[in-house]
Amino acid sequence: MRIPNHIGIIPDGNRRWALKNGLTKEKGYEKGLNPGLELFKLCEKEGIKEITYYGFTVDNTKRPKVQRLAFAQACVDAVKMLTKENASLLVVGNTSSPTFPKSLIPFALKRQVFGSGGIKVNFLVNYGWQWDLRDSFSSDKEESTITDLIKSRGISRVDLIVRWGGMRRLSGFLPLQSVYSDFYVIDDYWPDFREEHFYDALKWYDKQDITLGG
Amino acid sequence: MRIPNHIGIIPDGNRRWALKNGLTKEKGYEKGLNPGLELFKLCEKEGIKEITYYGFTVDNTKRPKVQRLAFAQACVDAVKMLTKENASLLVVGNTSSPTFPKSLIPFALKRQVFGSGGIKVNFLVNYGWQWDLRDSFSSDKEESTITDLIKSRGISRVDLIVRWGGMRRLSGFLPLQSVYSDFYVIDDYWPDFREEHFYDALKWYDKQDITLGG
Repeated sequence: MRIPNHIGIIPDGNRRWALKNGLTKEKGYEKGLNPGLELFKLCEKEGIKEITYYGFTVDNTKRPKVQRLAFAQACVDAVKMLTKENASLLVVGNTSSPTFPKSLIPFALKRQVFGSGGIKVNFLVNYGWQWDLRDSFSSDKEESTITDLIKSRGISRVDLIVRWGGMRRLSGFLPLQSVYSDFYVIDDYWPDFREEHFYDALKWYDKQDITLGG
Repeated sequence: MRIPNHIGIIPDGNRRWALKNGLTKEKGYEKGLNPGLELFKLCEKEGIKEITYYGFTVDNTKRPKVQRLAFAQACVDAVKMLTKENASLLVVGNTSSPTFPKSLIPFALKRQVFGSGGIKVNFLVNYGWQWDLRDSFSSDKEESTITDLIKSRGISRVDLIVRWGGMRRLSGFLPLQSVYSDFYVIDDYWPDFREEHFYDALKWYDKQDITLGG
């Protein structure tokens, strides 16, 4: 089976999961932590080299404060959880806004290696696609390729994007690394993650003809 | 029914259609012309305000010359065909490369109005996402929003992207106008376009919850 190098994860449906389970919306986010770890371990097992989790965006921070605090905390906990694994962790997002969790600043300054390193794991935290691209492409840098100039340049091209929760849209996820990505959507909500979701996505990806636009 | 303002069309599968029908690959492109006109008329009927057709890309021009000539000719014919309708036509692409069809240059300089104007119709011709974004976001333009600075700024945010031919990827289609787009994929090849495809896409779009990332 042809395995993607880099998988993008859009873990959507936490709030809908909470409502379906008789909880208030903000209770859904912490239910996404175990799925994230489980998915990480499956990627490790299958030899995937890089994962990017869509944490939260600048757009998301317009939601009610109780939700904002809950999803920010879930991101902090997710990063902390992976420091106990073999992983190289990078956080990408706007650190200069008050909605960026302070404890994640070291991970935003430099990729942090834990255990034996292993998979590159990126978290988009307080990320904005406009923030990512702004001020990047000035004409005096004409020699470089665009993707070397954006703020998320530490994140490579994404081969496969998997989105939970049924929406078929990118919602601002890394627009330049996603131009050629294959996009697989799972209807179940992210907290209902199951191993089969991951393998269904890999099996589907294996059948795609990768052309990089050619 | 909630109708999208702007539909992006990725008319893929022309070559696969040709092979399936015992023709050489390049014969598939001209079979995409009638579907393009039929779709335009459906959009007109349903009150859609803007359509963007993915013609061909800089990436595509690496294909064999016989194909390159055929898809470029199909784009020229498609634009000419729509000059007989009520439409405001704009071509967006790199006009300074030899693979850009010379007869389309006037449409790339300025939107051209035909008949009573009506729908904005955009064609991406010799388009490249890197070309589109390069040199756009310099820091001295900090006041403006990014999408006002790129070369495709005459094309607005895309609400719904419909792709024929089964691939679930954007293949470099307007990365910034597509950040929030809903993405509907039809397995049939573009030359096998049927009215139901269009209405299936609209019905699906009507059920989506549009949040623009919020």
